[in-house]
Amino acid sequence: MRDVAIIGVGLQKWGELWEKSFRNLFVEAALNALGETKVDKIDHMYIGCMSGGLFVGQEHIGSIMADYLGQRYLGATRVESACASGGAALRAGFIDVASGMSDIVLVGGVEKMTDVSGDGATYALATAADQEYEVYNGATFPGLYALMARAYMEKFGATRDQLSAVPVKNHDNGLLNPNAQYQMKISVNEVNNSVMVADPLRILDCSPITDGAAALILCPLEMAKKLSDKPAIKILGSAMATDTIALHDRRDFTSLDAVKVSSMAALKMAGKNVHDINVTEVHDCFSIAEIIVSESLGFFACGKGAEAAANGETRIDGKFPINPSGGLKSKGHPVGATGVAQAIEITYQLRGEAGKRQVKNAKVGMTQNMGGSGGSSVVHVMEVA
Amino acid sequence: MRDVAIIGVGLQKWGELWEKSFRNLFVEAALNALGETKVDKIDHMYIGCMSGGLFVGQEHIGSIMADYLGQRYLGATRVESACASGGAALRAGFIDVASGMSDIVLVGGVEKMTDVSGDGATYALATAADQEYEVYNGATFPGLYALMARAYMEKFGATRDQLSAVPVKNHDNGLLNPNAQYQMKISVNEVNNSVMVADPLRILDCSPITDGAAALILCPLEMAKKLSDKPAIKILGSAMATDTIALHDRRDFTSLDAVKVSSMAALKMAGKNVHDINVTEVHDCFSIAEIIVSESLGFFACGKGAEAAANGETRIDGKFPINPSGGLKSKGHPVGATGVAQAIEITYQLRGEAGKRQVKNAKVGMTQNMGGSGGSSVVHVMEVA
Repeated sequence: MRDVAIIGVGLQKWGELWEKSFRNLFVEAALNALGETKVDKIDHMYIGCMSGGLFVGQEHIGSIMADYLGQRYLGATRVESACASGGAALRAGFIDVASGMSDIVLVGGVEKMTDVSGDGATYALATAADQEYEVYNGATFPGLYALMARAYMEKFGATRDQLSAVPVKNHDNGLLNPNAQYQMKISVNEVNNSVMVADPLRILDCSPITDGAAALILCPLEMAKKLSDKPAIKILGSAMATDTIALHDRRDFTSLDAVKVSSMAALKMAGKNVHDINVTEVHDCFSIAEIIVSESLGFFACGKGAEAAANGETRIDGKFPINPSGGLKSKGHPVGATGVAQAIEITYQLRGEAGKRQVKNAKVGMTQNMGGSGGSSVVHVMEVA
Repeated sequence: MRDVAIIGVGLQKWGELWEKSFRNLFVEAALNALGETKVDKIDHMYIGCMSGGLFVGQEHIGSIMADYLGQRYLGATRVESACASGGAALRAGFIDVASGMSDIVLVGGVEKMTDVSGDGATYALATAADQEYEVYNGATFPGLYALMARAYMEKFGATRDQLSAVPVKNHDNGLLNPNAQYQMKISVNEVNNSVMVADPLRILDCSPITDGAAALILCPLEMAKKLSDKPAIKILGSAMATDTIALHDRRDFTSLDAVKVSSMAALKMAGKNVHDINVTEVHDCFSIAEIIVSESLGFFACGKGAEAAANGETRIDGKFPINPSGGLKSKGHPVGATGVAQAIEITYQLRGEAGKRQVKNAKVGMTQNMGGSGGSSVVHVMEVA
């Protein structure tokens, strides 16, 4: 397998982007990524998108995006693993370049989530759960993660204040990210008293509905210098794992086996230990998700993640900086784009281009992107080449 | 890149399968494919599915299918390129094994199309076209292919009888395929007088709505003998190309550039010429599609495909046998599964296991799987190892 590098990245300010269509979002991010490189011909595209069908009535996403990028005849594949679609697209692109099949691959992610009416977005997102056994019986994602939060709090004695430390930290970080959807400071008290969504999860525990896209350019490491003036970011490890799609089939609600399996495999491939990681972007779709993921990745012992978050260990200047971008909570969560944007944040961090949210001495970074209630997880490990 | 082989294949009899769910369909096909091998551990799965969201309210398809296959923690990726999703999944699986990232890959395809009510299937299928510029204005797939048929007939003087020769031949072949949805003989006269759908296309010009799945197992060619007693089928070439998603943006309605680009690339990679191909499965979603594809692949000169079909040149005993399986028209067209099932038919043909529909001396085969009105095309070339 050839060494593979990220040589260009691009996105846009995420939010409720009424003036931009599904295709516009993707093309804007793709052109921004291409603009960081000297690439004039793409060999293949992989596009993470969870549900073009339900959100905008558009499938055949590879074809439409290649077309509107002006890259007629280009091979283009849409990749889906619910909210881990972006991570899965990055894995597919990495393998394509590593294999020698393609030299230049564009990995993108896109979701246009605000064009549905009523409970359309909740319904579309629920298709990441088990339709027949969970959704049909009324489960929604806040409800499923609320079950995990309740089990965690009961088992480990975690407090409401500890849970709230996660979105407070992520909003502090997002304030420093000009592309974040919600650039505003929030307090533990505000999270604790925000509107209840699914007990114990309140509105400020939940990542938002977002329109947005993200894109990055991959090439063989040996071609990186010729194709971009930016420091090449080498992908050291890439792994994906699934778990039962339904929460009720899990042996335990307070850990995430797909996260464990995918991170152990990616770290092994990278020849790294979790303590070698200087900066991490994880899938904080709900406060409890970041806490459990931080444990399943191995940063903290089982049951210690909530306390660690409250003690500031995951802040930008903490021992294990997590989600310097602001995470899904503050940056936004256009589901198909999230995994790609995580890799973009790590690229900025490893290049030393993260501005006020820069983690000091960031040499090795990791991304963890999750589908559903942990039914799939994709982990990447990367470093400055 | 490592050489890659197909070592096991499986599907079920396709049709309106009310007693089988989305997940059941996939698992049945996957177990049938595994049953042809000695594989006890899969490294990754790629599953072609066009619109789990719109057909059955289920995305996160990799996770649910790995779960119900009993393969917890397995990496699993859903791949989409509208009706070419199966071909795109095969391409992704091929690259994964070729790269050395995975040894054993299951490539599947699945669609459960009959669980929607009213015009739900027509709406879901229309998401393969340009939602904003075609579908919003009332275009459906029979309508788009009717424009191609009308243009072709006008330009080349093709007759109604010539068009009808395609479904007549495909039903003759499907009669010999125990897994085909419609195992019944039809005549040119019956096609000519069947219900009009979109002038000039009649109901017997159109592939049906189908429930079904298909799966195959890939491994490095060097491991094939150890893992299966079946003859290994080596994948020689794999290529994908897109074209404008919207028909109105094409330079010409009577040829398919994505088919030309993808087949030339796959043949080049295989070191073969189109005249080396002994048997081909093509994407006959409508009669006109098989005719134009047979020209764009290079079997016949531009404008000569209709005449060739009427002259029997594409029959099982013809010069260029096309769709011995019965094609989409007779075998059925569960969109995400079609591309995988094409590779399964070629596997049967190259193994000499196609029974009464066996093409004599079939040594090299090809599949062509298409998305939308030709917005994407995936071509594979394979031979007995």
